[in-house]
Amino acid sequence: MTSTDQTQSLPFIEKKQFTTRNFKTFGGKTIKRVDVGWESYGNLNKNKDNVILITHYFTGNSHAAGKYTESDLEVGYWDSIIGPNKAIDTNLFFVISVDSLVNVSAFDKDVITTGPATINPDTGKPYGLDFPIVTIRDFVNVQKLVLESLGISKLHAVAGPSMGSMQAIEWASTYPDWVDRLISVIGSGSADAWTTAALEQWVVPITLDANYRDGDYYQFAKEEWPRAGLTHALALITQSALHPAFFNQIGKQIDFKVLDENILQDIKAKPSIVNWLYERASARADLIDANHLIYLVRANQLFITGMQGSLEEGLANIKAKVLLIPASDDLLLMPYHAEKLANYFQDKDHAVQLRYLESNKENSRGHLEGVAGIAEHNETINAFLTK
Amino acid sequence: MTSTDQTQSLPFIEKKQFTTRNFKTFGGKTIKRVDVGWESYGNLNKNKDNVILITHYFTGNSHAAGKYTESDLEVGYWDSIIGPNKAIDTNLFFVISVDSLVNVSAFDKDVITTGPATINPDTGKPYGLDFPIVTIRDFVNVQKLVLESLGISKLHAVAGPSMGSMQAIEWASTYPDWVDRLISVIGSGSADAWTTAALEQWVVPITLDANYRDGDYYQFAKEEWPRAGLTHALALITQSALHPAFFNQIGKQIDFKVLDENILQDIKAKPSIVNWLYERASARADLIDANHLIYLVRANQLFITGMQGSLEEGLANIKAKVLLIPASDDLLLMPYHAEKLANYFQDKDHAVQLRYLESNKENSRGHLEGVAGIAEHNETINAFLTK
Repeated sequence: MTSTDQTQSLPFIEKKQFTTRNFKTFGGKTIKRVDVGWESYGNLNKNKDNVILITHYFTGNSHAAGKYTESDLEVGYWDSIIGPNKAIDTNLFFVISVDSLVNVSAFDKDVITTGPATINPDTGKPYGLDFPIVTIRDFVNVQKLVLESLGISKLHAVAGPSMGSMQAIEWASTYPDWVDRLISVIGSGSADAWTTAALEQWVVPITLDANYRDGDYYQFAKEEWPRAGLTHALALITQSALHPAFFNQIGKQIDFKVLDENILQDIKAKPSIVNWLYERASARADLIDANHLIYLVRANQLFITGMQGSLEEGLANIKAKVLLIPASDDLLLMPYHAEKLANYFQDKDHAVQLRYLESNKENSRGHLEGVAGIAEHNETINAFLTK
Repeated sequence: MTSTDQTQSLPFIEKKQFTTRNFKTFGGKTIKRVDVGWESYGNLNKNKDNVILITHYFTGNSHAAGKYTESDLEVGYWDSIIGPNKAIDTNLFFVISVDSLVNVSAFDKDVITTGPATINPDTGKPYGLDFPIVTIRDFVNVQKLVLESLGISKLHAVAGPSMGSMQAIEWASTYPDWVDRLISVIGSGSADAWTTAALEQWVVPITLDANYRDGDYYQFAKEEWPRAGLTHALALITQSALHPAFFNQIGKQIDFKVLDENILQDIKAKPSIVNWLYERASARADLIDANHLIYLVRANQLFITGMQGSLEEGLANIKAKVLLIPASDDLLLMPYHAEKLANYFQDKDHAVQLRYLESNKENSRGHLEGVAGIAEHNETINAFLTK
């Protein structure tokens, strides 16, 4: 690790496209054509053995670090740990990330994905609910095809937050000879009853929106798509991924008042903090597809390491060294998920480290500490990758 | 305190009705006629100074203890601590509870309430959204009228869980000379930005339901009321009030499987735990009114102790001794709410005790420990009331 003044920037990032034909899903269906985007940081070495795969979270995509152009307002989500001389050092490693199937951001120009909003080659119309259900295993299999297309057959490490951790764990379980190191951040080895029901809360409001029309809305003008339901789902996702500490800081910033004369007199008026949350959700809704969100929820609900009967069977296949980084204030995938994995590996004398994200108590972002606050474990991550 | 074998049962409980005319709301409106239900346990003494008021939670009502008839399957929600020789000993105390205004259970034969589903005497039709917004202060003022109608002018204690704690705190702040002791269970002295937004998540799905028709649905057959949105709101409330530990125990009981062939093949099929949750929510929806739920959310969003500009101003009025009982695993009104109150009172050298509900770790019901698990603090509550 070097100090920040030595840190250089990544060169501008280019999103690339990968295409495969007749992709077989875990559920036994065939998708005639799959397109996904991918991007990379650093250089692949001659032996092609310096590869770190980054797997993204639910509302994320393969833009894990850097900027596309000078004018970008934001950098990739893990830019604090990916780059020259950073924890995941692009002077040493070829870091690569792939857009998921059924990525929520179907209409983001910087995302390439295949899902219900994609044109079905058999009909010339969007698949809608005819798109087959896909799973975390399928995301892993698409990533494997991307890597193989580059001549890669080994991962120095795979790392990801939240849904990204599920992909990372699935990689290590299903292709154990590929994966030397596994970093699971704010993650889980399996959906449980609680998480499955919590995820469903994101789906139901969309299906309540009369404009959802059982998923068959693409034929209508975009103004008639289920935007209200989608906006509500996004507001709920944002709140679930945060923590009261952070939310109440926002309240101070916007001068939130409990006893607000507007909401005392008008049942349809909304508290200022609600307007703040829903304005942000609504702004995001333009780029997001409702069906994609519903399919991505299902992929998460179906996740169990190894995609077999039990978590233990799936974990037993893993050969990689393991680093688990839960966020102590996480309300979405609480630390018990990581602790369950830590206990399993400790019992088997399998190399495992458990480190909590917890330095940011006053202003904790809860689950999102695994994205916005990951640099807290810069040194642990760097040591895990280089020692 | 005596051991359980000495405990006798309460006699059967009778719901009574209280009526008042031209009730002035905190928001400055007049409700021509207010009807609320109330019930009591134990006997009022000659001096009328042995009164304990119990204030109920969001989806609750005044049925705090006992049974109405032999055939009742369930007892009142705090029956474990209210009764002869129990923590709140009805051999000593006259315990009374009142149905809130805009009570969610508008169609429960055992609840008497006034709200949007009530006939507006000016029109002969249900008020709908013409009903004035009411607040926790209004609930307290109705309770005060009920007590005064019985010749009572002093409370030995006021105690309640969750929304009930807000009413209890509001009592102690607004009528400090009435209240000698205050017990706030899983409570809060004020809505904050986080809670306000979390409460709104219960409202939005109802308004997304096309059958909601801007609150104007009473004229239609009940099959055309916003049942789907209401059911979703109730499912979300249930999940918010529980904890993964309890939920995952349910998962075991119903043999919940992550990798379920139905949900792998059919995007419209639901995970078994989701069906479990929604079947229970749907069964409850018959007795609950959507507008009442929305108005009750608003009452909670508007709550700040003393209904003034700041929490500190409201707390400064309180004379009562204070007992605060948060649940350590509460995900809805987390312990920071109670800790904030405890810190305030400690700084002022005001008599305060803080006790956590935390013995039920393996199977924790989260927020609902304040209802179902309250007997953990039997002895603390009894001592607080009698010493």
